[in-house]
Amino acid sequence: MKPKQVLCGLFLGGLLQAFTVEGRTHITVILVGATGDLARKYLWQGLFQTYMEQVDSGRHSLCFYGGTRLHATEGSLAMFEILRGLSCLPRVPSVKCSMLKDQFIKLSRYQQLDTVEDFSNLNRKIEEQLAQEGLEEEGRLFYLSVPPFAYVNITAKVDATCRPKKSSSWLRVVLEKPFGHDLESAQQLAEELQKYLHEEEMYRIDHYLGKQPIADILSFRHDNQHFLDPIWNQHHIERVEIVMKETLDAKGRTGFYERYGVICDVVQNHLTEILTFVAMETPANISDSDEIHRNKMKVYSSLQKLSRRSAVIGQYQAYNGEVVQELKKPADYRSNVATFAGIGIFLDSPRWDGVPFILSAGKALDERVGYARILFKNTAFCLQSESTRRAEFSQCQPKQIIFYVGHGDLNFPAILVSRNLFKPVMSSANWKPMLDVPDLHVFGLPLSDYHVFTPVMQKEAYAVLILQVLRARRDSFVNTEDLLASWMFWTPLLKELSWESPRLYPGGLQNGHLLDFILAGQVVYFSTPDPATVISPGLEQQSTGTYKVLESSYREKKLVSAGTEEVIAELASHLQRTAEATVRRSGRFHLALSGGSSPLHLFQRLATFHHAFPWKQTHFWAVDERCVPLHDANSNFRSLHDHLLVHFKIPYLNIHPMPVHMNRRLCVEEDHGADLYANEIRTLVNDSSFDFVLLGVGTDGHTASLFSHSQALAQDSKLVMLSESPVKPHQRMTLSLSTINRAKKVAILITGKNKHPIVSKMSKMETNPEKWPVTSVQPSSGELVWYIDSDALFG
Amino acid sequence: MKPKQVLCGLFLGGLLQAFTVEGRTHITVILVGATGDLARKYLWQGLFQTYMEQVDSGRHSLCFYGGTRLHATEGSLAMFEILRGLSCLPRVPSVKCSMLKDQFIKLSRYQQLDTVEDFSNLNRKIEEQLAQEGLEEEGRLFYLSVPPFAYVNITAKVDATCRPKKSSSWLRVVLEKPFGHDLESAQQLAEELQKYLHEEEMYRIDHYLGKQPIADILSFRHDNQHFLDPIWNQHHIERVEIVMKETLDAKGRTGFYERYGVICDVVQNHLTEILTFVAMETPANISDSDEIHRNKMKVYSSLQKLSRRSAVIGQYQAYNGEVVQELKKPADYRSNVATFAGIGIFLDSPRWDGVPFILSAGKALDERVGYARILFKNTAFCLQSESTRRAEFSQCQPKQIIFYVGHGDLNFPAILVSRNLFKPVMSSANWKPMLDVPDLHVFGLPLSDYHVFTPVMQKEAYAVLILQVLRARRDSFVNTEDLLASWMFWTPLLKELSWESPRLYPGGLQNGHLLDFILAGQVVYFSTPDPATVISPGLEQQSTGTYKVLESSYREKKLVSAGTEEVIAELASHLQRTAEATVRRSGRFHLALSGGSSPLHLFQRLATFHHAFPWKQTHFWAVDERCVPLHDANSNFRSLHDHLLVHFKIPYLNIHPMPVHMNRRLCVEEDHGADLYANEIRTLVNDSSFDFVLLGVGTDGHTASLFSHSQALAQDSKLVMLSESPVKPHQRMTLSLSTINRAKKVAILITGKNKHPIVSKMSKMETNPEKWPVTSVQPSSGELVWYIDSDALFG
Repeated sequence: MKPKQVLCGLFLGGLLQAFTVEGRTHITVILVGATGDLARKYLWQGLFQTYMEQVDSGRHSLCFYGGTRLHATEGSLAMFEILRGLSCLPRVPSVKCSMLKDQFIKLSRYQQLDTVEDFSNLNRKIEEQLAQEGLEEEGRLFYLSVPPFAYVNITAKVDATCRPKKSSSWLRVVLEKPFGHDLESAQQLAEELQKYLHEEEMYRIDHYLGKQPIADILSFRHDNQHFLDPIWNQHHIERVEIVMKETLDAKGRTGFYERYGVICDVVQNHLTEILTFVAMETPANISDSDEIHRNKMKVYSSLQKLSRRSAVIGQYQAYNGEVVQELKKPADYRSNVATFAGIGIFLDSPRWDGVPFILSAGKALDERVGYARILFKNTAFCLQSESTRRAEFSQCQPKQIIFYVGHGDLNFPAILVSRNLFKPVMSSANWKPMLDVPDLHVFGLPLSDYHVFTPVMQKEAYAVLILQVLRARRDSFVNTEDLLASWMFWTPLLKELSWESPRLYPGGLQNGHLLDFILAGQVVYFSTPDPATVISPGLEQQSTGTYKVLESSYREKKLVSAGTEEVIAELASHLQRTAEATVRRSGRFHLALSGGSSPLHLFQRLATFHHAFPWKQTHFWAVDERCVPLHDANSNFRSLHDHLLVHFKIPYLNIHPMPVHMNRRLCVEEDHGADLYANEIRTLVNDSSFDFVLLGVGTDGHTASLFSHSQALAQDSKLVMLSESPVKPHQRMTLSLSTINRAKKVAILITGKNKHPIVSKMSKMETNPEKWPVTSVQPSSGELVWYIDSDALFG
Repeated sequence: MKPKQVLCGLFLGGLLQAFTVEGRTHITVILVGATGDLARKYLWQGLFQTYMEQVDSGRHSLCFYGGTRLHATEGSLAMFEILRGLSCLPRVPSVKCSMLKDQFIKLSRYQQLDTVEDFSNLNRKIEEQLAQEGLEEEGRLFYLSVPPFAYVNITAKVDATCRPKKSSSWLRVVLEKPFGHDLESAQQLAEELQKYLHEEEMYRIDHYLGKQPIADILSFRHDNQHFLDPIWNQHHIERVEIVMKETLDAKGRTGFYERYGVICDVVQNHLTEILTFVAMETPANISDSDEIHRNKMKVYSSLQKLSRRSAVIGQYQAYNGEVVQELKKPADYRSNVATFAGIGIFLDSPRWDGVPFILSAGKALDERVGYARILFKNTAFCLQSESTRRAEFSQCQPKQIIFYVGHGDLNFPAILVSRNLFKPVMSSANWKPMLDVPDLHVFGLPLSDYHVFTPVMQKEAYAVLILQVLRARRDSFVNTEDLLASWMFWTPLLKELSWESPRLYPGGLQNGHLLDFILAGQVVYFSTPDPATVISPGLEQQSTGTYKVLESSYREKKLVSAGTEEVIAELASHLQRTAEATVRRSGRFHLALSGGSSPLHLFQRLATFHHAFPWKQTHFWAVDERCVPLHDANSNFRSLHDHLLVHFKIPYLNIHPMPVHMNRRLCVEEDHGADLYANEIRTLVNDSSFDFVLLGVGTDGHTASLFSHSQALAQDSKLVMLSESPVKPHQRMTLSLSTINRAKKVAILITGKNKHPIVSKMSKMETNPEKWPVTSVQPSSGELVWYIDSDALFG
């Protein structure tokens, strides 16, 4: 049957407005996967709404195609059944609505889309229509609502057969997530797609960006710059919460969920996109997609790397059973997939330094709700009594801005601004103030304490986004660079978490406090112990947070040994206790640190957990240094600086890098750098006796930069000297053994399997400074403790 | 009439317990000012209660004397009238009570105490009694409830006539505040008293230290160390509030109040003492007064200096009228005395870095209440919906510990600990858990959300403290060192505030939000504009926070002029805008700063208000430096460091002090320090063109360290050079004029009247580098702006 020829544009133009509009152009929209779930629920409705808006503007002539791999008879039946179920917005009168729907159905056709021929046929039909209409072709929009594995195949066919003839007409292809499940797969998919489509032809949908409160975050920030500029920063914002809670579980979708989990499903995309809108610099031009994109990329580059302690994960109890059943797994199968996650993210930027972005999402929770909440710090002291205070909009009540997607207690999309903050400027075309607010309590305040704005017209996210495709507003979509940056950020965490068992939770209201979590510095942990651990017999010990540390002796001195983390934790605590006691006694703490990789773990631990350390009273000295400029990546100082010093406000004059770089040259004897450092020690450190010296050991038995048979060993009467390393960079500056042995405390930290041979050898070795310099570390009146992790100790 | 001879100890010993107690000793208590207000309201009652407690213990024989300057007949009448009105604690049966009261009255005598002879008579009577009793004399307690001007006189007489004979018996003199009204007067009084009394003989009462919840702060901290040690620090505590609100006004006491005001009346003493108890390190031995004293003094030495912006002050509207009337002042008299104050205090200690201690007190407020509140940070994210959350003790509810003195909503003394913190360990002898808590809401939580502890027996503060005198528990009193440290802390603020008009407030409930205040960094300001300013005609402009800044020109370049504060504020904003724009463009900001006093104000402003400045991307260079070690108090770098750098986490390698101190000598030509610095500039600063150079001007027209007719001016081809100053320290290192003129922006900041002559001269002057080096600051392609305050501009 030859399809009925309809002159799309003329038809509808004639119906509702002036017969011809100057410069009208033709657009074809092709929905691939026209009878799938998403198409049924949202997409056709979105296309219908887009059609209605276009009817109002009258600028374009629109035609719609739906396609699947099914033959026309079967596919057509299913598709038109969906179309007959479409509905208008409430404000449209029913007579007008049914007329519009009739029109829309007449403008829509089914086309089997399986083989290349099918796509060629489609192309031919479009060309025919264009010829009949006699309008300029504006472009073709392919909406791929198909599983991702089909993207490349379909895109290749579109590229081969369906490109508009004229170069001035556009081709746009809309893709639905998921776009990979980690960086590699996302990269692969992106590369494949790039073979057939230019970047500006791809529109990756993140439907959350079509939710009105989210879609308008940037314009809200822009319109209220006057109020927000002084307060949108770390000095005023306490935290940002970006949350998407679902009551639904993964039943029936475990195949998908086992592969993706909650982080790939909604965090990597929806919540991360929201984060970029909250955190980015407001673009000068709010309509400039490129500027928005550049600012977004700056946010990505400022995100601090996540560690496995940046997140907590959970899994609802029934999930594993569902997986076993649906995916036919063996009965003892144990899935590690997270159905809940809470993550603490920090940004390295002057604006956001130290402000936690808390992202949280999950299934089988107690309520369905989504929001981005900016909570401001309470810097006020309110004098009047509490009862008086509550009656007014006090500065001591929570101050916050909430972009509320919907559901939850409020149950409608809204933008909320606490009245004790400011009265926001809102575009009246999109947002209206709510005058009669319901008697609700949200985020710690009665709703009447907020300026509440709701959309003038509630729109489906898909309708919003399809319109944005037509407008080429690429900032409402995820481009390749953005996508890969997000995956680059999330993939390391995903890898780490894949080895961890999530905490089990019963689901729904029964979850109670079970999924509450705490942010301590950059570490996230559940606020209650895991009941699963508590009830496991014999594990009570572990659940209280204590770990087994072996205290023994090694080379006749005290030895502390355990797993790497525990050894580092013990050493850090020891260091802090020593520092506190020393500062109490003498007001300062002189600490000399070695370079190398083991101390790096210690620095990280100190930076994360030891905020109560007397940093301001601590003087930092180097045990040894490589003869490279201090900013060089090989510099011991650089590593100390970047991993520890930069995290605290330490007085400049307390920091004592070795002067290896003088007069624009490195470690030249005539510059007397070693003598200069020795003098600095003599001047500042009482009796040149450091309070604490941290050493490592090389696989060859060296310590500090004192290598076996080196000339430096002979100069032991000096405090500091130049030395030679057998490995690059050869030149070094180092404390002498005698300086080290004057110290009040010396700790030698050894971690890792590769140190096992030397640890084993040393346990039997006599003191032999020439051959094994480390064996001569014997504080004359101070204490020596060995910190050796089990890998190094037992191999 | 010869007084009736009563054998004090035997009498009461025989009455209530075994006739003789081994080792019983005799104590005489003398209340000087026995019929005054305080004596009538509290002191006799306190002595009676002490007597009753001693009766129970039976260890001492007590005798009481009351004295005034009145003749025996008159004085005795008034005193015994008071004594007949004494009451027992509720739990004492009335028969026992009247018996005890009888005994107490029999043990009490009146003695005129005016002349030396009177005191000699007193001494004679005491000696006679001792002889009759045949007990060892334990000691004599003089309680001086008299105006402070009488202290020295009375103490001199006591010293001369009333010292116990035996050296093993003690003399203790209790003094009531005020102890001066500033550091000088307090010092004077202390010196006078020290002529007659040893330090350990003086017991300065601060009756707040006898309030049970306050008196037990230290033992609470000690007993709960296990819970508190990990959280009693800046990492977990958000703020500490120490508050004393009164509804009473100063009517009838304006004579006193005009001299003292609210800060001397209750803040310098009561609230500051509480601060030390909260902030100090917990003593290892809670009964060791010396250790407590040492820890207290460490708190004082860690208090950051207050500036006039550390506090807000108010005065209730009726106060001035009361002063005019009571003190017979002229009708147009305008008192600046504060009847309300809010102060933000910070400590320089690892434990308390950045935690505000908010002290607030006032008269004519909406309620009477006193408390110390420790509010913990909310580091939790609670997942469950708000309604669920409220039903349990969630980590997201406020976490706090409150030492509640009494009155207010609660209306009884108590110690409150949020249930989501921990269950405290409390001494059951003094504190009992409240099981049926009233339905109240305090500090943001229902009372049932706290562990509530109330005193087992409510005691009057004076009774508690008199007992502490007998026990020689000196930590419950204010010793001289403590007192002077507190005055040293408060006096500079008092001096600054004496010139400021306090905000007027109506009093009581009507105060509304008027006295609410905000802490921004270390600056405190009222959260609402002053209505007095708002309604003054013509001042509307000012009240909106804008100020009048004159933009004009000077020496053909842009001039910004206004009051000092405003000029500095403008310059700071300009600097931040420039820094932000530069960092956006090039990733870094190279800033060269001059030494001197004007920049100091700028540094302070930047440190306080400009937390959003891109500090981490800013490189700090010196315009000039004095040839002294960097840590020397005269070093420009030291001043930059202490006033600006130390407040931010700035990477070490971004800080570029001039190398004036090399090879242990200062600015020696052969060390090539200037060349080294020039090289550093060439290496790091693109085209050696700084992004911003800040200069000052000397009264002699010098800028940087370029002095008129100096040789340095001839070396202008260099980037950096040594130079000579006509004033000490003579040797300098400085950027050259040509380096300065390569900069992209140059600002010259001039403040103060003493600069008026040079500003005036310069306005007419031609360019003359030899004579007036500053006239040659002419950036070749950059911008020059003059920032001159009105003092310097108009004289």
